Amino acid sequence: MDITKRIIVIGGSAAGPKAAAKARRCDEHAEIVLLQKSPELSMASCGYPYYVGGDFDDRNMLLSTPAGVVRDPQFYLNAKGIDARISTEVTHIDRSEKRVVFNNLMSGDTGSLNYDKLIIATGSLPKMPPVPGANLKGITTLQSMHDADFLREAHDAGKIRKAVIIGGGLIGMETCEALQLEGIELTVVEMLPQLLTFLDFDIAKLVENHVVSKGVNVITGNGIAAFMGRDGVLTGVRLQDGTELSCELAVVAVGIAPNVTLARNAGISIGTTGGIEVDQHMQTSDPDIYAAGDCVELVHRITGKKVLAPYGDLANLEGRVAGENAMLGNRAIFPGTIHSGICKVFDYIAGATGLSESSARENGFDAISVINASPDLPGYMKGKLLVSKLVADRSTGRILGAQCAGPGNVNRQIAQWAMAIIGNLTVDDMVNADLPYAPPFSLAIDHGIATAHLMQNKLMRRLKGLSPANVKQKLDHGETPFLLDARGQDEFNRTRLGVGEMLVPLGALRKRLGELPENKEREIIAYCQIGLRGYEAALVLEANGWKNVKVMEGGIAAWPYPREK
Amino acid sequence: MDITKRIIVIGGSAAGPKAAAKARRCDEHAEIVLLQKSPELSMASCGYPYYVGGDFDDRNMLLSTPAGVVRDPQFYLNAKGIDARISTEVTHIDRSEKRVVFNNLMSGDTGSLNYDKLIIATGSLPKMPPVPGANLKGITTLQSMHDADFLREAHDAGKIRKAVIIGGGLIGMETCEALQLEGIELTVVEMLPQLLTFLDFDIAKLVENHVVSKGVNVITGNGIAAFMGRDGVLTGVRLQDGTELSCELAVVAVGIAPNVTLARNAGISIGTTGGIEVDQHMQTSDPDIYAAGDCVELVHRITGKKVLAPYGDLANLEGRVAGENAMLGNRAIFPGTIHSGICKVFDYIAGATGLSESSARENGFDAISVINASPDLPGYMKGKLLVSKLVADRSTGRILGAQCAGPGNVNRQIAQWAMAIIGNLTVDDMVNADLPYAPPFSLAIDHGIATAHLMQNKLMRRLKGLSPANVKQKLDHGETPFLLDARGQDEFNRTRLGVGEMLVPLGALRKRLGELPENKEREIIAYCQIGLRGYEAALVLEANGWKNVKVMEGGIAAWPYPREK
Repeated sequence: MDITKRIIVIGGSAAGPKAAAKARRCDEHAEIVLLQKSPELSMASCGYPYYVGGDFDDRNMLLSTPAGVVRDPQFYLNAKGIDARISTEVTHIDRSEKRVVFNNLMSGDTGSLNYDKLIIATGSLPKMPPVPGANLKGITTLQSMHDADFLREAHDAGKIRKAVIIGGGLIGMETCEALQLEGIELTVVEMLPQLLTFLDFDIAKLVENHVVSKGVNVITGNGIAAFMGRDGVLTGVRLQDGTELSCELAVVAVGIAPNVTLARNAGISIGTTGGIEVDQHMQTSDPDIYAAGDCVELVHRITGKKVLAPYGDLANLEGRVAGENAMLGNRAIFPGTIHSGICKVFDYIAGATGLSESSARENGFDAISVINASPDLPGYMKGKLLVSKLVADRSTGRILGAQCAGPGNVNRQIAQWAMAIIGNLTVDDMVNADLPYAPPFSLAIDHGIATAHLMQNKLMRRLKGLSPANVKQKLDHGETPFLLDARGQDEFNRTRLGVGEMLVPLGALRKRLGELPENKEREIIAYCQIGLRGYEAALVLEANGWKNVKVMEGGIAAWPYPREK
Repeated sequence: MDITKRIIVIGGSAAGPKAAAKARRCDEHAEIVLLQKSPELSMASCGYPYYVGGDFDDRNMLLSTPAGVVRDPQFYLNAKGIDARISTEVTHIDRSEKRVVFNNLMSGDTGSLNYDKLIIATGSLPKMPPVPGANLKGITTLQSMHDADFLREAHDAGKIRKAVIIGGGLIGMETCEALQLEGIELTVVEMLPQLLTFLDFDIAKLVENHVVSKGVNVITGNGIAAFMGRDGVLTGVRLQDGTELSCELAVVAVGIAPNVTLARNAGISIGTTGGIEVDQHMQTSDPDIYAAGDCVELVHRITGKKVLAPYGDLANLEGRVAGENAMLGNRAIFPGTIHSGICKVFDYIAGATGLSESSARENGFDAISVINASPDLPGYMKGKLLVSKLVADRSTGRILGAQCAGPGNVNRQIAQWAMAIIGNLTVDDMVNADLPYAPPFSLAIDHGIATAHLMQNKLMRRLKGLSPANVKQKLDHGETPFLLDARGQDEFNRTRLGVGEMLVPLGALRKRLGELPENKEREIIAYCQIGLRGYEAALVLEANGWKNVKVMEGGIAAWPYPREK
């Protein structure tokens, strides 16, 4: 058969191999060449933290098909008919000649190849804080197999006594868990005031509390000023406020930047986010060149703005679209991102999709939010706590975003909300959703549906809710609302905020109204363990003439601040 | 305060208490009376199988709030301001007088109460097969706390040697697991040709295989003809084909029927399904009477037809709508059901939402289906198998239904598909869905998205797929397609169908085309372990001139029939 066309793919991690494989499935006879700088192909880089942490021992599992075959050049040639060249760095794209120039990093040979269509999947590069000492031995990122090997070795050797993780994002948190070993003192340093900035502060703080409960030191609002060392070896880090932390290992996870040098040098348009500009076909400003993966910017499906979304799942989906369109012409469409993400942090899971409350506001939405706490399963099935924050557009009720954290089944919650956003659903649509229910899988009224109920009540002004953060702010500002804890005496004896509250169990409230403030205008904030009894207490008070009754959403379960007990 | 109105609720299981509680939250001053025939209130009846099976020991957990308070009349009075009367059977609804007449089953006293609005939540009654011997001791259903207590006692006593479960639906399967103890011989008898009729045959057969692998006898296509006994005690069952099974215990789970006697006797309209007719406000043919829960019929949101949907989650949601509307006038809307359901069967989970392929056809859709098998997580995270069947409308691509079974995370899959159906999404919408991904939670390309990819390929005629059932049918009819197993030799040595297939690993296929049928018109069916290699093999063959190449969807993982090894 004659070769119909030649497609060249630059990059062999996620988007590149997927684009090449999809292109092959669209045309068996085209020539497909994949050029990869690293010695490995198709690395499951999202799995690095679990390899480092010892969840599994065979590093080849990160490089293998489900059937256990390592995805090396031989595999690509035989199974996919793809000419995959490893340790091959593309140095130059010559668009006028439709040619790429490359170096073989092993042999030092150079070469060039012409393309009919080119796919750029050059991924991202870890950001390094611009501080002195970054070349000391003992500093690493977790971006490559090499990094993963280095950290796994450190993990197994067991000689590290103190380690610092610079950056409290997804990778920082996953690394934190991977390195949390007997006898190691771990500190996470985050420049911003909170961990996991895809969450709003109140949810992120719950995750931080959990991380701290696992023995990890967490320092927020403080960046790194310098790495300190002796004889070229790391001995510690100095923070911007002057604090010095001694450590033998520092893992830098302050974010990644699209790797666009090749594209920029070739004159391809780079967006304001720093990613390669692509249209919905994943086509760049050069019609013969597509791009996919961490190196591109995407449309945010809610705001319509260009954003970076360096997620492994999207890289695969984008690669698939780029591969099909490069081979067959523009047919497939990639609609963009809603920034769905999830991560495991010790026994907690934290996830989000769509906009956080703060990002919704920044993007001009009249956002309303509500917090809900409940178990994921009935008590008799040993349900575990979920704390969610739902964000909606106040006037239309459109669901803008959801966050969820806790030891419970966050996975289902975020997957559901992601689908709700993709379907442009409103709060009203979620209120009576028919979701799969059986006691091993959800509450009779699923946590997400209950969250929608709260939001609906809040939108209708039946529920006058305050988040725990709102309540804390009031108290910190010297306000003195009447705080009503509507739980039982036994619960109060076990756990309580200790911020001047009065206990009146809901079951006794109707008989003890005389103990409530005489001044019917006084602000009353009712709460319970998770929320329902606080809400019902507020309704009882309103019906009895109190005019300014609010409910602390999520109750004690969502209170992220220190408690009396 | 003056009492504004009196709401009476008949039924105290799920829909009734929820309606009463919601009504109370809508008006603190109305009088709300709940009349319950059983001695218990708010029983978590979906939890019975787990109590019977010993997942927990305290039966009060089935009757308690999340805070551990038993929902008895005292609780309802104090915490909810609801006058809940147990052991109180309503005998008559007098619509002209707007009055209900009741008996106290303990004291024998009768009474009556007038209502402004009435909510009927009388639930369902277990069907009993109309065969002799149904009153023998040792026969039970699993519909009440009394049944649960009886079965738990049998479970704990450990004296049962042989038990028969009549009915292979959700309750039958859950009971099966609850009773599967050391030393007990369990048989499930189902009149229809398959278990779990909300699934299509091919998926249900996978679940059946799993049940059989757990040591349970499964008899399908055979109903019960008689219960046999001696001295009033069950000794066995006789089936319609004459088979006799000895047993000391029989659990009847052949379905439930709406309990509409009271409503029917009061002249309220009953639908053709046998459930009480309600509109979207849960209002019956009498504007002063609402109904909710298992006793009503609902609109199916895809077909528009009236159906029964006796699920605990919907009962709660319907109750909430009925309670609000009864109290405040018709404001809230219940949009209907899509028949989402899920159940745990030993180490398998089976779930479905929307229409099965057969129900889609019965409802006049030009349905197309595809089967996908894959793990739920990457291999290095010890992913577990999922086998899904997706059903779509051929011309529009609208998602009509999805089924999923396996040891993997079926819960997330069905929840996602339910949301997709609620959002009226098409296959194209799912193909690039931005779902939460991290290795502990999904594959990089989520199983559901991959299923949508297959469906898209099938709709575009790129994938010419056959289900394993289609392939088996061909073989059973004496057809002789060329069967190509595209896996590796080691996999073939471990597992294979043994139906005359030839092994040509995908990686060797391009070099071994000479071994394929000379006749380019001959039907070839390619497959692998789960599907991708089979698909890629088919594309290689088509590109090399074979004209009639198909792929067996889901591969060996979805093959529900006996294998050579």
